[in-house]
Amino acid sequence: MLAVKYRLSLNSARQVLAAGINYRKEQKRYATLNMQTLNPLVKEVEYAVRGPIVIRAGEIERQLKGKHDYPFDRVIRANIGDCHASGNQAPITYIRQFVAGCTYPEVMNSPDFPRDVKQRVERLLSACGGKSLGSYTESQGIITIREDVAAYIQQRDGYPADAGNIYLCNGASDGIKTVIKLLMNNDPAKPSGIMIPVPQYPLYSATLSEYGAHQIEYYLDEDNNWALNIDELERSLNEAKSKCVPRGIVVINPGNPTGQVLARDNIENVIRFAHKHQLFVMADEVYQENVYLPGSKFFSFKKVLMDLGAPYNQMEMASFHSASKGWHGECGSRGGYYELINLDKDVRMQVNKLISACLCSTSWGQAVMGAIISPPREGEESYELYKKERTMVVNRLKEKADLVSQLFNSVEGVRCNAVMGAMYAFPRIEIPKKAIEYAKSKKMAPDAFYCFQLLEKTGICVVPGSGFKQRPGTHHLRTTILPPVDQMKDMVERFRTFHMSFLREWK
Amino acid sequence: MLAVKYRLSLNSARQVLAAGINYRKEQKRYATLNMQTLNPLVKEVEYAVRGPIVIRAGEIERQLKGKHDYPFDRVIRANIGDCHASGNQAPITYIRQFVAGCTYPEVMNSPDFPRDVKQRVERLLSACGGKSLGSYTESQGIITIREDVAAYIQQRDGYPADAGNIYLCNGASDGIKTVIKLLMNNDPAKPSGIMIPVPQYPLYSATLSEYGAHQIEYYLDEDNNWALNIDELERSLNEAKSKCVPRGIVVINPGNPTGQVLARDNIENVIRFAHKHQLFVMADEVYQENVYLPGSKFFSFKKVLMDLGAPYNQMEMASFHSASKGWHGECGSRGGYYELINLDKDVRMQVNKLISACLCSTSWGQAVMGAIISPPREGEESYELYKKERTMVVNRLKEKADLVSQLFNSVEGVRCNAVMGAMYAFPRIEIPKKAIEYAKSKKMAPDAFYCFQLLEKTGICVVPGSGFKQRPGTHHLRTTILPPVDQMKDMVERFRTFHMSFLREWK
Repeated sequence: MLAVKYRLSLNSARQVLAAGINYRKEQKRYATLNMQTLNPLVKEVEYAVRGPIVIRAGEIERQLKGKHDYPFDRVIRANIGDCHASGNQAPITYIRQFVAGCTYPEVMNSPDFPRDVKQRVERLLSACGGKSLGSYTESQGIITIREDVAAYIQQRDGYPADAGNIYLCNGASDGIKTVIKLLMNNDPAKPSGIMIPVPQYPLYSATLSEYGAHQIEYYLDEDNNWALNIDELERSLNEAKSKCVPRGIVVINPGNPTGQVLARDNIENVIRFAHKHQLFVMADEVYQENVYLPGSKFFSFKKVLMDLGAPYNQMEMASFHSASKGWHGECGSRGGYYELINLDKDVRMQVNKLISACLCSTSWGQAVMGAIISPPREGEESYELYKKERTMVVNRLKEKADLVSQLFNSVEGVRCNAVMGAMYAFPRIEIPKKAIEYAKSKKMAPDAFYCFQLLEKTGICVVPGSGFKQRPGTHHLRTTILPPVDQMKDMVERFRTFHMSFLREWK
Repeated sequence: MLAVKYRLSLNSARQVLAAGINYRKEQKRYATLNMQTLNPLVKEVEYAVRGPIVIRAGEIERQLKGKHDYPFDRVIRANIGDCHASGNQAPITYIRQFVAGCTYPEVMNSPDFPRDVKQRVERLLSACGGKSLGSYTESQGIITIREDVAAYIQQRDGYPADAGNIYLCNGASDGIKTVIKLLMNNDPAKPSGIMIPVPQYPLYSATLSEYGAHQIEYYLDEDNNWALNIDELERSLNEAKSKCVPRGIVVINPGNPTGQVLARDNIENVIRFAHKHQLFVMADEVYQENVYLPGSKFFSFKKVLMDLGAPYNQMEMASFHSASKGWHGECGSRGGYYELINLDKDVRMQVNKLISACLCSTSWGQAVMGAIISPPREGEESYELYKKERTMVVNRLKEKADLVSQLFNSVEGVRCNAVMGAMYAFPRIEIPKKAIEYAKSKKMAPDAFYCFQLLEKTGICVVPGSGFKQRPGTHHLRTTILPPVDQMKDMVERFRTFHMSFLREWK
């Protein structure tokens, strides 16, 4: 039975994968848009976090609702950092009260509605056209929220931040795409090149594919807790120079999918490197509030750049943050912001013009981001509950971050760096040579083959390391640390059993 | 005094405009991103609705708060269809109760909370991960909302609609950009060409510039209430064939900025034309609920295409709708959807992959779109209030649509077609030859010069026709019909005085 299902699932996986590679020979009579005429750059885009394995997980979930003979009753979706969906994490009361108040101010008439939240709502609505979230906002975002973001950054770094440098956007993804767009040269013969870490978050490779840019891949140092090695940066840049015009460098800190938190001197060296090669720095800092390992500390690129003084403090830089991450996990809101510093004045006007063509980012997402960035202060009515909810969520994340790497490291043939921050573990998996050869004969990445099997046999949905890119010859998977502790333990036990049987099967 | 201010304002206008044309010769020592290295396609983008004149209006608004010698005390922002901000239009209670309930379900504990809204909230949250709007949604959007959209379309057209063809997006702008992206060929030597009406909504020209596509401009027939003339479509397509690969046609119905509502036979002819030339049809139907003129009726492109039967009912088509428009005007939410019909199966998988890289559109925007598309039914608790609010808003819009064209037509040298639908009047303005020459000597479009002067002397902020493109030698302005009736009348009176004095000054 399992053998039959395995063949079925492999077929299913192949079908899903094939869509990206082949196109049907037979075409409808009228098809102005087919695989021959579709934008070739769109075909290049890959996004593993919602890729074939996740589509297959959805199919299985539907099958599980009926009569089935899977040896499990539910799919554990550990493929995406989706806090409210993955675990037992409820939305934070303060954030939701604030947004509900902004949406329908009548709810504030309730005697239970906290006064501090009411004051914040009134301040925000006063900055909205017609005192309604239904009005378009300034293209950069509502000024009071941008002021709050600037205050948050100033508080974080100890350096001034200017609301004029803050851009609210539809999730960090939207902001990242905008900033990368600025750096493109529209020259297919020698395109712009952007340095990205390997492993990376696949939004970067997807966006660079979509824009026809060159991906300059630098390897993170897995043996050194995924640190950035400057010699490796130099190597990758040098090798790329004949193929592209290098324009920028992306650093993800805390790391996704790797979970590392960069040391301060590592950041300093990256900044010096970027300055030396005139690279625009894109600091993906969406996990800045997700730091777990005792002794680890988040340093923003902006702070380090400012600490370094001239000439580094003149460098252009973008830093991205998101309402989706942190510990509140308001992913659906698509709230986010970026700070653009030291930008050429004329370029800034061009940015403002560019973003104005889509009018503004979602005002509700802006409100969520505003609430996150400006929590209740001690002594305010909503402070105690907020503190209690925060402590509970943060403690659970810390516990799981510690637990997950321990658990994976207890499995033979698996090695997992400490989860210092972010929301993921990225264990390295030993895959037997025979399985690698078999997968390749089926035109699948070996870890994709492994993860598909893991899904079919255990219901665990994780993302293959190949979806994030990885050093050739190594294999990984990415799992979130979001499922509840009991589920997490159960998940790793099921994983252990599967892994042992996989090793035996392909030895 | 006025002369001084006029010079100042002209300088200001020139400065703002110049940013798009020139770049500073002096560069900072460290400027990896300057006007020489900025993406050349970004420089090409223009978006008049939030362009230089609107930036200037913001400056004046700030000056009006202090001591000033403008002959007015407020700026009338008639530049953008922003319902809640522009007039005395409050949000619709039903929509806001629904969204507040989805945000913070505790508000539904109030005994005043309508039961029908509560049921709708519970249905929506059941379709969200962890029953929270804070979870990522499916990339296409929450299934229950897509089902409601499909039901709405089916009800509208009398033909089946499939939730699998519905894509929720961040305002129609986001959807339009996605669909245009599919049609690009990434060949700067002979790029894809998209037919757009002139006048058009500048998102189209901005997007095509950004993507490096060719804009195939067809003129709407101003003397025939802005109808589409098929000979004109053929002319523009023929002339463009040497410069590009024609791939699609955009039709805006009801029209923006023109306010026309297309007759059914006109739509039929456009569909036949698109079929003949294998063009992908993009029907911008965001004003489908804004039809005012007695005898005018909205026909969706999909309905007409289905009515025509084979082979037309096999054609690929995208239709766009938005939470921003209609009569509820929830612009800030950035809710929107598009329906993609008859798409090649493999292309559809590519679309789904492409949109997955930004995970999903804003769930709050999705909820707003859901509420709009699925209003209370007769007999439900919230129906009466909803009906009352709707009637009030719709009647006001009808009154103003009628009033505005009448008023403009009463001014010498101004001619305005009937505002059949949408939210705008697009009167044609006679500008004296001397003023045209003067504007050109200052490198300004004559109607931009005119509108800047109108703003400085009356506080009325409208968008020059050149921002939408127009037949060479003609000049227009676009005003919304959203300000309250009294303000609207006052606005046109101020406009009349200004226009007469402008004619005298430049005769």
